[in-house]
Amino acid sequence: MPFITVKVLEGKSKEQKRKLIEKMTEVVTETLEVDKDRVFIFIEDLEKDNYGKQGKMFSDIERS
Amino acid sequence: MPFITVKVLEGKSKEQKRKLIEKMTEVVTETLEVDKDRVFIFIEDLEKDNYGKQGKMFSDIERS
Amino acid sequence: MPFITVKVLEGKSKEQKRKLIEKMTEVVTETLEVDKDRVFIFIEDLEKDNYGKQGKMFSDIERS
Amino acid sequence: MPFITVKVLEGKSKEQKRKLIEKMTEVVTETLEVDKDRVFIFIEDLEKDNYGKQGKMFSDIERS
Amino acid sequence: MPFITVKVLEGKSKEQKRKLIEKMTEVVTETLEVDKDRVFIFIEDLEKDNYGKQGKMFSDIERS
Amino acid sequence: MPFITVKVLEGKSKEQKRKLIEKMTEVVTETLEVDKDRVFIFIEDLEKDNYGKQGKMFSDIERS
Repeated sequence: MPFITVKVLEGKSKEQKRKLIEKMTEVVTETLEVDKDRVFIFIEDLEKDNYGKQGKMFSDIERS
Repeated sequence: MPFITVKVLEGKSKEQKRKLIEKMTEVVTETLEVDKDRVFIFIEDLEKDNYGKQGKMFSDIERS
Repeated sequence: MPFITVKVLEGKSKEQKRKLIEKMTEVVTETLEVDKDRVFIFIEDLEKDNYGKQGKMFSDIERS
Repeated sequence: MPFITVKVLEGKSKEQKRKLIEKMTEVVTETLEVDKDRVFIFIEDLEKDNYGKQGKMFSDIERS
Repeated sequence: MPFITVKVLEGKSKEQKRKLIEKMTEVVTETLEVDKDRVFIFIEDLEKDNYGKQGKMFSDIERS
Repeated sequence: MPFITVKVLEGKSKEQKRKLIEKMTEVVTETLEVDKDRVFIFIEDLEKDNYGKQGKMFSDIERS
C-alpha cells in the first residue's frame, strides 16, 4: 500500500532509476512488513530551471 | 473547490483526457454538490521509466 | 494504474466520500479502459485555515 | 524547512521563474522567520491538455 | 491559475498562515501577471514524526 | 536533493517511521550518490476513510 514519490534532479540514468526502484521497494517491504506487490514508486525529474533553493534558480547556482 | 490530480501512464490520447476531465467534473459536481466552476483537474503523465511496481521499473515489466 | 488525489474542503461526510470513491472509480475505469482493481483514490481534507484564495484564508472569507 | 510547489500553466519565461523563486523565498523567509537556506521551491509546468476547469480541457477553452 | 502548496513544520500560528497566504498571493500576482482571483494556496502541516532529514526523524533531531 | 514522500496507511508506529527514514535515506544516498544531508523525507498518513481501491473505501473493505 505504500505509495512513494521521489523527486530528483533531472539527469539520472535509467540504471540508477532501476536500482532506486528495486532497493526502495526492498526497504519499504522490510520496514513496513508489506508485500512487494503493494509498493508503488513514482519518480519525478526536477528540471534545473524549476528548482530553487536559497532564493536562486538551480541552473543559476550551478553556473556560478 | 475540489482539486483533482490524476496520475496516468503516459500515452493517453487527447480525446481520452478530454473525456476524463468532463466526466470527472460531473461526478465531483454531483457527489459533493459543488458548482462546476469550482472543479479543477490536473493530469500527470507518468513515464514508463519513472514508474515502479513490485520492485521493477514499468518499462522492464512491459518488455518481459 | 491511475492514482487519483482529491483535495476537498474538510467536513465531507463518510457517505459522500464513499460515493466519491465509487463513482470516480467507475469514470476512470470507463474512460481510460483500465480494470477497477487498478484504480487508487486518495482523499485529502483541506482545513479552512490551510486554504487560501484571492489572498485570503478561507476561514476568514467564510466568516465575513 | 518550507517546501513550496508552484503549479503554473506552461509557457512562463526563465526570467519569470527566476523572479518567482527569488520573491517567494523572501516572503517565506520573512513570514515564517526561517533562514533563506532552508527554503526549497519546485515549479511544475502544467500542459494545456493536462489542465481542466469547468469540465473542459484548458486547450479547448483557449481555442474557443 | 497558479496553485501553490506550502509544506511547513507544524506549529505555525493562524496569524503566520494568514500573512503567508496574503503575501504569497501578492508575489505570484506580480511576478506571473495573473489576477488575484486565480491564485490558490494550500498549506500542509508537517508533523515532526513525519519529517526526516539526514536520515533522522525530526522529532529525534530536535530532542538531541 | 532528493525529496521523498511516502504515503502509508495510518497506524504505523514511531519506531517503524524512524526506521523507514533511516533506511530510505541510506538507499537513496547509495543509489543516487548524494550526500545524506541532502535527503528529505516526508511521511503522509493515509486515513482509512480517505483511501479507496477497487471502487471501495478502505475502511469498508477491511470490515467485510
